[in-house]
Amino acid sequence: MKKTVEYRHQVLSPKQLLESWQGHRNLTRRVIEAFPEHAFFEFSIGGMRPFAEMVKELLAIAEPGLREIVTGKTEVFDEHRDFGSTKARFLQFWDEATEKINGLWEKMEAVDFQKEFTSFGQFPGTVQSALFYFIENEIHHRGQGYVYLRSLGIAPPLFYER
Amino acid sequence: MKKTVEYRHQVLSPKQLLESWQGHRNLTRRVIEAFPEHAFFEFSIGGMRPFAEMVKELLAIAEPGLREIVTGKTEVFDEHRDFGSTKARFLQFWDEATEKINGLWEKMEAVDFQKEFTSFGQFPGTVQSALFYFIENEIHHRGQGYVYLRSLGIAPPLFYER
Repeated sequence: MKKTVEYRHQVLSPKQLLESWQGHRNLTRRVIEAFPEHAFFEFSIGGMRPFAEMVKELLAIAEPGLREIVTGKTEVFDEHRDFGSTKARFLQFWDEATEKINGLWEKMEAVDFQKEFTSFGQFPGTVQSALFYFIENEIHHRGQGYVYLRSLGIAPPLFYER
Repeated sequence: MKKTVEYRHQVLSPKQLLESWQGHRNLTRRVIEAFPEHAFFEFSIGGMRPFAEMVKELLAIAEPGLREIVTGKTEVFDEHRDFGSTKARFLQFWDEATEKINGLWEKMEAVDFQKEFTSFGQFPGTVQSALFYFIENEIHHRGQGYVYLRSLGIAPPLFYER
């Protein structure tokens, strides 16, 4: 009986969390694609970072953040890595991260999602709170990218299409 | 042994999901508070809705959306409800929704998060995918509110403070 209760109360499975994450990453990829080359690196509103800089942050978090959860070895948080000066290169790094995340996720089988974990040696929480932070932070910045696109007269991809 | 495995793979508990949701709603509340009265209802960028209109959408989703999950009775999605023309009234409705959500959540004990469920009679998915949509849609629009605030020269609340 207790087992049934647990199953019913499993809000989402690890597999569903990965699918959700990669669905969001796929949408963000399409937001990157929607930017004109120049605007991706230079356009900003209200003194905020251009979208390319936000994407650098997302790339600095996602795969390195998952890697340290899986390996237990602290990673350096570096949101200033050089991904070149073309959207094409950013998209290439994005796709490489996508594959690496899928590969690393197979090792999550052995990880307790509720275990206490400090991301990048500085952000305390649990494995699950770290992963949700990665996803939610991406949604947050991507929403900002939507405003940039609208301000540029470009219709962004539909939010609910992953 | 199987039970332990299940527990370890419980990505997050229903209680943690509620805490996450209300944490996000608390941050959105502070974003509403950060807007100057006039700008909340009128300021926009790139032909997008003023933040007040986005908040109407969020209020139309959160408590009614959870209510129909709990009761099984389809709700009407109405993002044009009249919440008056002051931030104070919006915040009052926000706080009322917060309390109602906490009350409704007690009944989630009886709900299967993986059950197929169509929100507002038109958005198919499961209970969990509906709930995550509610939260992620809020993060998305709140991120847009951050750009509005920055464009108005106002520092938004810190994203990671809930």
